Amino acid sequence: MVPTFYYRYTAGKLKMATTYKVKFDIAPEPVEVPAGTMITVAAEKAGIEINQPCGGQGRCGQCAVQVTAGNVRRRSTMRLSAEDVEQGYAIACQTTVEGDLTVIVPPQEKIQQHLTTGQSAADVSVPSGYDHHRNQTVHRIPVTLKHPSMEDQTSDWARLKTAVLLETGLTELSISLPVLQILPAVLREGDWKVTPVLYVEDGMKSGGTGEIIDLIPGLVAEDAPLWGAAVDIGTTTVKVMLVDLISGEPKGQATEYNAQIARGEDVISRIIFAGKGEGDKTLRTLVLESINELLERACQRSKSCPDKIYKITISGNSTMMHLMLQIPPSSIRLAPYITVANYIPVMSSLEAGLSTHPQGKVICLPGVASYVGSDISAGVLSSGMSETEKITLFLDVGTNGEMVLGSKEWLVTCACSAGPAFEGAGVYHGMRATTGAIDEVWINEETKEAAFRVIGEGKPKGLCGSALISLLAELLMTKVINKSGRFDFSLDTKRVRKGSHGGEYVVSWADQNEIDEDIIITEVDIDNLMRAKAAIFAGFSVLGDSVGMPLDSVEQVLIGGGFGQYINVEKAVQIGLLPDMPWERFQFLGNTSLKGAYLALLDFKYQQEISEIANRMTYIELSADNRFFDAFTSAMFLPHTDMTLFPSVKIGGDK
Amino acid sequence: MVPTFYYRYTAGKLKMATTYKVKFDIAPEPVEVPAGTMITVAAEKAGIEINQPCGGQGRCGQCAVQVTAGNVRRRSTMRLSAEDVEQGYAIACQTTVEGDLTVIVPPQEKIQQHLTTGQSAADVSVPSGYDHHRNQTVHRIPVTLKHPSMEDQTSDWARLKTAVLLETGLTELSISLPVLQILPAVLREGDWKVTPVLYVEDGMKSGGTGEIIDLIPGLVAEDAPLWGAAVDIGTTTVKVMLVDLISGEPKGQATEYNAQIARGEDVISRIIFAGKGEGDKTLRTLVLESINELLERACQRSKSCPDKIYKITISGNSTMMHLMLQIPPSSIRLAPYITVANYIPVMSSLEAGLSTHPQGKVICLPGVASYVGSDISAGVLSSGMSETEKITLFLDVGTNGEMVLGSKEWLVTCACSAGPAFEGAGVYHGMRATTGAIDEVWINEETKEAAFRVIGEGKPKGLCGSALISLLAELLMTKVINKSGRFDFSLDTKRVRKGSHGGEYVVSWADQNEIDEDIIITEVDIDNLMRAKAAIFAGFSVLGDSVGMPLDSVEQVLIGGGFGQYINVEKAVQIGLLPDMPWERFQFLGNTSLKGAYLALLDFKYQQEISEIANRMTYIELSADNRFFDAFTSAMFLPHTDMTLFPSVKIGGDK
Repeated sequence: MVPTFYYRYTAGKLKMATTYKVKFDIAPEPVEVPAGTMITVAAEKAGIEINQPCGGQGRCGQCAVQVTAGNVRRRSTMRLSAEDVEQGYAIACQTTVEGDLTVIVPPQEKIQQHLTTGQSAADVSVPSGYDHHRNQTVHRIPVTLKHPSMEDQTSDWARLKTAVLLETGLTELSISLPVLQILPAVLREGDWKVTPVLYVEDGMKSGGTGEIIDLIPGLVAEDAPLWGAAVDIGTTTVKVMLVDLISGEPKGQATEYNAQIARGEDVISRIIFAGKGEGDKTLRTLVLESINELLERACQRSKSCPDKIYKITISGNSTMMHLMLQIPPSSIRLAPYITVANYIPVMSSLEAGLSTHPQGKVICLPGVASYVGSDISAGVLSSGMSETEKITLFLDVGTNGEMVLGSKEWLVTCACSAGPAFEGAGVYHGMRATTGAIDEVWINEETKEAAFRVIGEGKPKGLCGSALISLLAELLMTKVINKSGRFDFSLDTKRVRKGSHGGEYVVSWADQNEIDEDIIITEVDIDNLMRAKAAIFAGFSVLGDSVGMPLDSVEQVLIGGGFGQYINVEKAVQIGLLPDMPWERFQFLGNTSLKGAYLALLDFKYQQEISEIANRMTYIELSADNRFFDAFTSAMFLPHTDMTLFPSVKIGGDK
Repeated sequence: MVPTFYYRYTAGKLKMATTYKVKFDIAPEPVEVPAGTMITVAAEKAGIEINQPCGGQGRCGQCAVQVTAGNVRRRSTMRLSAEDVEQGYAIACQTTVEGDLTVIVPPQEKIQQHLTTGQSAADVSVPSGYDHHRNQTVHRIPVTLKHPSMEDQTSDWARLKTAVLLETGLTELSISLPVLQILPAVLREGDWKVTPVLYVEDGMKSGGTGEIIDLIPGLVAEDAPLWGAAVDIGTTTVKVMLVDLISGEPKGQATEYNAQIARGEDVISRIIFAGKGEGDKTLRTLVLESINELLERACQRSKSCPDKIYKITISGNSTMMHLMLQIPPSSIRLAPYITVANYIPVMSSLEAGLSTHPQGKVICLPGVASYVGSDISAGVLSSGMSETEKITLFLDVGTNGEMVLGSKEWLVTCACSAGPAFEGAGVYHGMRATTGAIDEVWINEETKEAAFRVIGEGKPKGLCGSALISLLAELLMTKVINKSGRFDFSLDTKRVRKGSHGGEYVVSWADQNEIDEDIIITEVDIDNLMRAKAAIFAGFSVLGDSVGMPLDSVEQVLIGGGFGQYINVEKAVQIGLLPDMPWERFQFLGNTSLKGAYLALLDFKYQQEISEIANRMTYIELSADNRFFDAFTSAMFLPHTDMTLFPSVKIGGDK
């Protein structure tokens, strides 16, 4: 399946008159496409959906096809052996049509339905063995009470309590005032049949304690949905996943920009905003509006409503967590960079300001430090790295780069203020990964002409993060820039020129654009990007160094975060953003933060585990670490000063 | 001391021309007073304060003087032996001047300063051995924290928590969002010296758990006041006592009518009001306004303010508790007469709607049943009956009569809907015990003329509860009415006459009154009062019967409640309201409900004890008990059908 929001638009090539016919074995007729068309696009035209789990970035190799006749150009042969290539195999999403073709599409077990609920929907599945009786902290306990009489004048609450204790084996049960206030009406409405909703912090167990958070008249069927929600508050986007706590199944997701964006793109500018006047109140209101709107949207799809949601788990970076709760965040920004709290008390939705059931529980997952929040501790859980014996590097790149090195034995973590360059900010034509953003760029090695891909159906407006990585790598690999990021003005191309910001390269000419100017990348942009990638790579170095371990002993690299999902690893290695190691060691996990929140929502043991992870992670403060500055300086080349660290990167060589 | 609010006004006697001289041994000169003047009044005129702990009602005997020469009339010789009387001893507040006198005033250890803070201030003292470290659940823990640094990036909350756990020996500490929100500013304002206010539900103990409910910058001195408040919510009045939890001392009291009165005088009419439209919300608002205003007033006197109060204990009847919390009370009124809850969860002031510190704890003390509320369980605690081996009858008469029989071994309780007659309601000229109310009446045995006492300085407006008891007794003892409560129209007095409501007796003529009519008591009034007293006496009978115990085996009768404080026992026995037993068995305890709330405020063990008392009281539902109706019918005479139950009552005999 080609994600519908990718409209393939290969700028330079559309002008070519040459077209070729492509005949797929499973299609009745050949299709005609311009030279340079990606095979996946040709397949789409032929009505064939080719499975592309990695989203068409050449990483997973799942879209491999066999070209039995005709000429193709392989941009990448990742995942293919030399023998495969010999047999005509090609990665459909990385191979262009350069002649009339005959193509065999290998049988797919099934066409995966990706991204059904939005671009960045987390791909989660119910943990095997999930049993809401055993794992869940929210339970419905239907009970039938004896009618009161002159012989039995027990109060409503004592009557209910006795029945629930008997039914559950709990020894203590509490109730809050708002529930007491509805108790008499609910009992009588259901003719003394009632279904209390219980919250049992440590799980349902004999001798435990519980709290009644709601009362439903009558006896509710055991398999009726019982709603919870997992929330990931990112600096840029907020994601909500609605979950049926009985089956454990996600029943809807919704994603939206964090409405705080209008008050600052990164955490630092938000912290500054929060400190002015009622800025903190404004930011709280904005993010709550975002969450509440998403809850509403997720519920509509499942015919639920937010006030039926009894439990929410929330992950996010420490600043987002502070801002959502209106806890003053200023100490995060100022040395010695500390949070007010990494462990936030469980509170009611009412206290938190959420639109979920007022007595519903809000569980803000614990973070580690100012710049390693619960998005990372939840991410570590969902990545599985805290349970494996393999030495693992976990990475989440957004505005900051947070990384964790370790295994089940030990965990060290750090964050480098990479800046928002990889999110498109601080770059002249940078933009977020929305409609109109170029998200992938290819440069012809000889002509230095650019081809690119645009998100959505339309003309380009700017460059998003993955395009910047791709562009930087292509500029380097085609020698348009040198290892220091400086342009080669001696090249015979109009695309390299001197502009008002110094050297620049034109990615897309004004007449092809949605905007009235050329889309360019400048030397200043390149410098920003190099600083960002150098900071991240320096982070890896310090982490390794802190445990006396060279980076090549890392057995797997797990990449989380919405951004990570779309990084082209090959190109990220080429610019020295990711360490150079065999492809199979890299895994893209998608939104690990939301997945962690989902797991914590389902099972209190996962929730406890996130606390333990947060607790046992050793935080390394890079701003106080000279090693970091050394490593940073060394990484301020493309890919690196020390080329022995990047043996696979052959600049200008055959690919 | 003569309470200043009692203005002695002896109606019939002021017209007499005769005056006598009274010489007190400790006064330089004799004073001249009209015949019939009370000795206490004569003493006042002579500048002598005679100690009257019971308020001048002849109950305590503390005002006894020795009349060595001259003629007196003793209205009561209670507390005096025949020998005492022979030696000239007389109860000064019950003895009138009927000739020139020489009087010896026995040396008083000290003149007690009663009622310093208002008519109904509870007379409490700090329990001996009170130690706030050991007994209190609210503590201030001043701590000095290490400054954060790049080497120690612990979060504010973790830094504080660690220090407090170390200081206290607690093992778990929680914090709520509002406190987290102020944490960073408070820590920095006090330069990392801070005084958290802790709530430790089970007292401060090693291994316990606590909650930080407030933070004060800097180190607060150990003996600085730490405020708490005890509240008694009566159907008619609300009482607040401000307490310094460090010393345990009451620092101010304030009393005011429950503002709900305007929406119904008794609990039944309030319940009905609550059920209509937003009546429940209105009643909640009204009583909260009353409490909050009283807190403000009590604080002004101590230069405190309500938001510095961290803990409130509240006692009150079950309806008042439901209404304050807006828990629907309708099931209290309808068979089978049950509450929604007798045990109310501890909540924050914010949840409760009080003006005290938002995170302050509100502890609503537990009641037993619809008509035996926490005013009674708290009252039983403060009366000491649950700790004594003596068979005790505890009685609290207000709108309803609640009573408890038992000892440390067992407790049975019941409530009889006596109706508000003894509070002056449902009686033609009845009124509450405020300025202008006649509160005591004497009738001349021969002339059938009335003398009375008025509260405050002014003319009478009506009859309050204690006057009604007194009047009924005097009418009976002077044979103006018979045992069935019917008037003797054959008497030669204008005061007995037939009015529009049947027979009536004129207590005060219109020209002496503040109101433009004669103040009377009618046969209908008498009937109402007889029903009320019969209900109460029937309650005693059923309680005794339920445990197979005749009333005369009761070793002490403890009378609580604001009303009880002013009952004239002699007269209450004469009408058959109280059982006939030796005077020394009666004790008046004042506001036992507020005292119980005060004890629970100081010591969590007292608080637990009230729960245990509420739990072990066996409630007897009188409306379902045929014995009650029989006992009631038998008690519908003055004093009773069975005169053997009242051996001391000699109608028309010498007193």
